[in-house]
Amino acid sequence: MKSTAIANSNTAMIKYWGKYDEKLILPMNSNISMTVDSQNTTTTVEFSKELKEDAVLINGKEQDGKPRERVSRHLDLIRNIAKIDLKAKVMSENNFPTAVGLASSASGFAALTLAACSAAGLELDKKQLSIISRQGSGSSCRSIYGGYVEWMKSEKSEDSYAVQIADENHLDIRDIAVVISTRKRKIPTREGMRLSMSTSPLYNARLKVVDESLKKVREAIKNKDFTTIGKTAEADCLMMHAVAMTTDPALIYWEPKTLEVMEKVYQWRDEGLECYFTIDTGANMHIFCLPGSADEIVKRVKEIPGIMDVFVSKPGGEAKLINNHLF
Amino acid sequence: MKSTAIANSNTAMIKYWGKYDEKLILPMNSNISMTVDSQNTTTTVEFSKELKEDAVLINGKEQDGKPRERVSRHLDLIRNIAKIDLKAKVMSENNFPTAVGLASSASGFAALTLAACSAAGLELDKKQLSIISRQGSGSSCRSIYGGYVEWMKSEKSEDSYAVQIADENHLDIRDIAVVISTRKRKIPTREGMRLSMSTSPLYNARLKVVDESLKKVREAIKNKDFTTIGKTAEADCLMMHAVAMTTDPALIYWEPKTLEVMEKVYQWRDEGLECYFTIDTGANMHIFCLPGSADEIVKRVKEIPGIMDVFVSKPGGEAKLINNHLF
Repeated sequence: MKSTAIANSNTAMIKYWGKYDEKLILPMNSNISMTVDSQNTTTTVEFSKELKEDAVLINGKEQDGKPRERVSRHLDLIRNIAKIDLKAKVMSENNFPTAVGLASSASGFAALTLAACSAAGLELDKKQLSIISRQGSGSSCRSIYGGYVEWMKSEKSEDSYAVQIADENHLDIRDIAVVISTRKRKIPTREGMRLSMSTSPLYNARLKVVDESLKKVREAIKNKDFTTIGKTAEADCLMMHAVAMTTDPALIYWEPKTLEVMEKVYQWRDEGLECYFTIDTGANMHIFCLPGSADEIVKRVKEIPGIMDVFVSKPGGEAKLINNHLF
Repeated sequence: MKSTAIANSNTAMIKYWGKYDEKLILPMNSNISMTVDSQNTTTTVEFSKELKEDAVLINGKEQDGKPRERVSRHLDLIRNIAKIDLKAKVMSENNFPTAVGLASSASGFAALTLAACSAAGLELDKKQLSIISRQGSGSSCRSIYGGYVEWMKSEKSEDSYAVQIADENHLDIRDIAVVISTRKRKIPTREGMRLSMSTSPLYNARLKVVDESLKKVREAIKNKDFTTIGKTAEADCLMMHAVAMTTDPALIYWEPKTLEVMEKVYQWRDEGLECYFTIDTGANMHIFCLPGSADEIVKRVKEIPGIMDVFVSKPGGEAKLINNHLF
């Protein structure tokens, strides 16, 4: 009853912002991401009658409090489906430093879901896995698949899952993750989404246009039309941040350096070096470009004073089981 | 047929963003500002049969092209009303360096309107003056009045004018103008408004809530409730910039330093030093505070590296005629 899985992180091109159902994690809008190959999580789960309670180690550190509880709750969901009552040992390792502030919950919960379901003896298809993973961390349901992935909104749990738009070999894009800050968010993302829905006068206006953006990006991925993907992703990012900053209290995720890099992206694009930015709920930025421009952009990004780290990713593969257990 | 007028600039608390009528300059939403006492324009206008064409000097510099044309068109409007056909000499001086990027068209067109109407022999009340001034530069209609001023929206030119909510002695607030950048806007404000109306999916959502913000600020001014004025002005500023940045192309007026000062304002407020920011279509910022906090805030602003200049204003008086002609 021991399994190990590896899952990649993903970068949203059309953002997930707001939940229809907080407990089931059903998104207000469908959203699209690219699974990325350079940031992943490996997780080993073992269910055992020897254990009196779940033990959770992340990057070598025993967890307690909320992080441990969140993993335990996710294991409960899986134990429930598998009809088992055993406690588990969970060990999880990210291949990137968590201190840099890049999201690890997407790859983390996708790997946990796959490893725990396998260790519990469940034979599930990807759709079922993504429904389970979603309930641990929304965006993790997209990391079950490789390549370009859409998480479908629905008011029913069984209809809100990820589907693959195109696999990782269909279109080669680079995602340059620019680490700008490791400052902690004052308001956690979950709480930020909730506040935006209840207080931003612009929230519903974004919802009304997001289907159009989804359609554009979906078709552009199929047509390998990088320009449309990039433009639409950048516009949706600004839309999400517009909603966030008109929330009460204002959620301003950018730092001065974020704006500096944004300005550079505009400038480089004006100069003919095609690239587009997207920003999640923090100061860090992702720059999308075609493979031929990646080296030049990375070089230029590294020349900006104060950039802490840069990670370049290709489209990554699906979450999968592996034989190298962590313990 | 020679008159001189002096008019103060004003700082918007609820922003004007978008025109119902481009030619008449009728705003999509009513808006509120505070007339400020530290930035003003003095303008002398003389109509004379000696002149073959209008001559326009601003800060000692003879104007041609668009700036001269814009003044001439405004004089035409006044000549039309006065039924005169004489060309004019216009000399205009700002008491602040125009190079710092602080708006001068509000004080400029208010002074021009008052001086030109007087020189043309027109005896007009403030309402009539503000209707004329509005057609030269929208926000200038607010500078006809002192203190706290609302510019009423209407679909009819004769109903869109400024009214005073309270005079400059009613409530003492400080407006600390923080000069961050003298970089030119890529897209002029007029064009930016037009693009926002036609392309920002959030434009109408802001319009729907602006009446509520206007009511709050109007009542808060009457009740001398600085906290509500400040909070509402700051939220409306973020709303206007949210609309701007979701325009196609994205209008991002902030520079890294703008965000740095915004963060400071949040931090100072958390520490109990009450102040609120607002930002127009540029990187510069205005910080509103009560008189007792102004010295401390100015000191702290000046400690931020890279701040170019700081101007502190009280609520200023109305536009008025003076006897000291500039020529």
